Amino acid sequence: SNLFSFHYIKMPNFNEMKNAYQKLLIEIRELYALRQAQALLSWDQETMMPAKAGEGRSEAIAALSKVLHERYCSPHLGETLAEATTQIDQKESQGSRDSKKALLYEFKRDRDKILKIPTTLAEELAKTTSQTQQIWAETRQKNDTQSFNPWLKKVLELRRQEAECLGYEGCAYDAMLDQYEVGLRVSTLTPLFRNLKNQLIPLLNKIREAPRQARRDILKQNFSIEKQKIFNQIILTDMGFDLDAGRLDVSAHPFTEGLWPQDVRLTTRYREDDLPGALFSTLHEGGHGLYEQGFLPENYGGPLAEAVSLGIHESQSRLWENQVGRSSQYWTHYLPILKDHFPDQLASVSLKDFTLAINAVTPSLIRVEADELTYNLHIIVRYELEQALFSRQLEVDDLEEAWKAKYQEVLGVTVSEPKNGYMQDVHWSCGLMGYFPTYTLGNMYGAQFFAAARTAMPNLDEQIERGSLLELRNWLGKEIHCWGRQYSPRELVKKVTGKEPDPVYLSNYLEQKYKQLYGF
Amino acid sequence: SNLFSFHYIKMPNFNEMKNAYQKLLIEIRELYALRQAQALLSWDQETMMPAKAGEGRSEAIAALSKVLHERYCSPHLGETLAEATTQIDQKESQGSRDSKKALLYEFKRDRDKILKIPTTLAEELAKTTSQTQQIWAETRQKNDTQSFNPWLKKVLELRRQEAECLGYEGCAYDAMLDQYEVGLRVSTLTPLFRNLKNQLIPLLNKIREAPRQARRDILKQNFSIEKQKIFNQIILTDMGFDLDAGRLDVSAHPFTEGLWPQDVRLTTRYREDDLPGALFSTLHEGGHGLYEQGFLPENYGGPLAEAVSLGIHESQSRLWENQVGRSSQYWTHYLPILKDHFPDQLASVSLKDFTLAINAVTPSLIRVEADELTYNLHIIVRYELEQALFSRQLEVDDLEEAWKAKYQEVLGVTVSEPKNGYMQDVHWSCGLMGYFPTYTLGNMYGAQFFAAARTAMPNLDEQIERGSLLELRNWLGKEIHCWGRQYSPRELVKKVTGKEPDPVYLSNYLEQKYKQLYGF
Repeated sequence: SNLFSFHYIKMPNFNEMKNAYQKLLIEIRELYALRQAQALLSWDQETMMPAKAGEGRSEAIAALSKVLHERYCSPHLGETLAEATTQIDQKESQGSRDSKKALLYEFKRDRDKILKIPTTLAEELAKTTSQTQQIWAETRQKNDTQSFNPWLKKVLELRRQEAECLGYEGCAYDAMLDQYEVGLRVSTLTPLFRNLKNQLIPLLNKIREAPRQARRDILKQNFSIEKQKIFNQIILTDMGFDLDAGRLDVSAHPFTEGLWPQDVRLTTRYREDDLPGALFSTLHEGGHGLYEQGFLPENYGGPLAEAVSLGIHESQSRLWENQVGRSSQYWTHYLPILKDHFPDQLASVSLKDFTLAINAVTPSLIRVEADELTYNLHIIVRYELEQALFSRQLEVDDLEEAWKAKYQEVLGVTVSEPKNGYMQDVHWSCGLMGYFPTYTLGNMYGAQFFAAARTAMPNLDEQIERGSLLELRNWLGKEIHCWGRQYSPRELVKKVTGKEPDPVYLSNYLEQKYKQLYGF
Repeated sequence: SNLFSFHYIKMPNFNEMKNAYQKLLIEIRELYALRQAQALLSWDQETMMPAKAGEGRSEAIAALSKVLHERYCSPHLGETLAEATTQIDQKESQGSRDSKKALLYEFKRDRDKILKIPTTLAEELAKTTSQTQQIWAETRQKNDTQSFNPWLKKVLELRRQEAECLGYEGCAYDAMLDQYEVGLRVSTLTPLFRNLKNQLIPLLNKIREAPRQARRDILKQNFSIEKQKIFNQIILTDMGFDLDAGRLDVSAHPFTEGLWPQDVRLTTRYREDDLPGALFSTLHEGGHGLYEQGFLPENYGGPLAEAVSLGIHESQSRLWENQVGRSSQYWTHYLPILKDHFPDQLASVSLKDFTLAINAVTPSLIRVEADELTYNLHIIVRYELEQALFSRQLEVDDLEEAWKAKYQEVLGVTVSEPKNGYMQDVHWSCGLMGYFPTYTLGNMYGAQFFAAARTAMPNLDEQIERGSLLELRNWLGKEIHCWGRQYSPRELVKKVTGKEPDPVYLSNYLEQKYKQLYGF
């Protein structure tokens, strides 16, 4: 039976403490403890919550958001932050950006972002995006662009207002990018993506003309979900994900929710006729999960125990899903184990056929079903269009046609209806302009990190062939995970790889892989 | 991938609103939304949370408790409450206690209880009970009373201080009782329990001398947990628990956590060699669950959508577990279904043998393993002893001997060591003095309610024999669940049954049942 009671943790007496930095740390840690509760409410909503509980759950999420908003905005917190900053600047000033300075800088950045957006605008955005998501779900199946477009316009307009509040140096869309990939600007991203596109399109043409064809049917047999679950636990444990500090559950769309570095929740989804679906989403979320589990205990409950950006986060998931998980080295070890679980379906399948099947390249209409190569082209199309929309070079009413033209040009496929075209993704309805690019940035960073890992561990391929993955996990932990937000994404890439972010690592890796698989 | 964002629900503008009562409702509803988050943190801790996440979780629970405490204590809330009370008293004064008045009264009662206890004492209690639980877990197995007793003394002393802060009219222990069973006093409870004891002990003696003996071995065979789970879903659904507004999971100790009336989480535990364990705990928690799901939608997010007391809550669980679930009528319908699930184990078992086995009476040392009759004697022993401890008529150092003597006298069993004696339960370590009586009150109320249900539904037995349980569920909903905290426990019992709470209903019911089963 339940009983309502209060729980206390004895807190230090603030009046007795002279150290503003320590005071601030305690306040920040409490904020992050509350954010843990918020994360649990949303994880539970996607995994455990019964069907009728949605309305009550929205109230809990909104009430806790309000508490968090008040806390972040509190003038008292602002004063403590200012005092702590003065203290650290005076007493511990060093040339470099040490961890205390990084913490202060990052926390101030979060807080300023919240303070800059008027509550009325924040409320309007939350309300409108919530409504637009519903409208999207209702109109998409019917290709009802007439009803959907006015809502998309509203969302765009509110996000443009938000950009003005946040401020920017280059163009307004930079303010969007900066929220997901701190420091990223259109002036940097456009040439990166242009180069990548110029490298990927010729590669795609070579594959189109290649003699070999993938036997994708071997992945579409009947695979018992119970056995898939057992196999997924194995691959997750082997890559070093700690199931005593996390879970793997089922949800409609796979995701990772780090409640706390020792409580990292992954999800996947199973279909009997789709072996790679659950398998690669488990590897993918497992990569996210290792990042979330890899922060330093002394930083728990603060910005230094958080991912620095969505692009870096995605680099970790893509590295495990693709660089590791779609390599023939990986399946040298795991295909025999997989065959033990599914002898009827896979006993006669060769390593070569299996690897080709999981790497099959086919230009298609739908992003979430795309292969490792064309996925990036889906993203680049979205980047070009959303940037044009944001800056009013493209009107929402012309989006359907523009989308069609781009898909024809870049992917060589014909979009027949909006639900398989610009209405396929929920992102824009949620106001997530500037978010799509982080997926391909993740692929780029991932390839660049993996190239550095190869250099650092010359026998990496042999290790993977033996199913020995922990040295790689530890290298990623030491080079990337442990830093949290100490370095910006660009600084981190330079620190780890010695180079600026460059799409050549991704295109080289893809070129090499497909050359071998497709024999061109 | 996760992304931190704020969620807003557009709230009415307080300045534009003239109605203090409406303002108050919104503030209360936000408080309860935050309590939903708190309930989820603790449900998840017992069911889903990975092993290493405990430390981080404690911080989240403590941080949210602090927020709730601040909110409850806020002077602004106090002003709104006072204004709303004036408004309702003036404009809508009626003789009776209508729902608005009940809401104001109950909310004020909760808030006053929090305000009356100094933060330092509340913190000290939380810290000490948390430590004492740990000490209990460490010392119990070793019968180390020397190490345990000083902690129990501390807890008692802090709870005595709390009683002084809360205030009382009769004796200090009344302040304990009042927290779990509002309005209950020693002066009422002692004669109730004395009567009950005087009725149960002779009944126990008759059973001891009865010719028939229960064949408990039929319940101790090997029962597949997967099949138990399927059967439990059936009995839970049949009794009207809505699995679209709740869940059934597994935890070390079964419990019910109502996050919100449309999100009620039950747990049970399964053992292959113990069929009744999961079965009756599912019926038990299902009874709690129906209560939690049965509040009126217009009261969601406030005291009128809460159980009025632990005793009334327990009456609902015991009614389904015992009055319904251990009756031969119930198994007339369900034994054939159970046999379909477990033909090898149960095909040859008769209804009579099965019913006798699930109703076997054996005086024993351990409360949680006790049968429906002797359970109440375990509780009465605890009530008599904790009341004596609280009022210093009994010293903690004499508790071991006093316990031994009581068990010999009341249950006729010899306590050989403290771990099977006064150290068996965690309750006192948690500071839950005054809590035990609610279990037996639940049995008493449950029997009294069930007698009223029989009068209201003359064909109730036939319905149960057909497995038709929804009319009973609806009657309980209409008579008890829907009222929430509108009436005090005593008022509710009188309203539903027309009589003051009386142990005679419980002892009559037990007498009749055992007479039939044991053939004395």
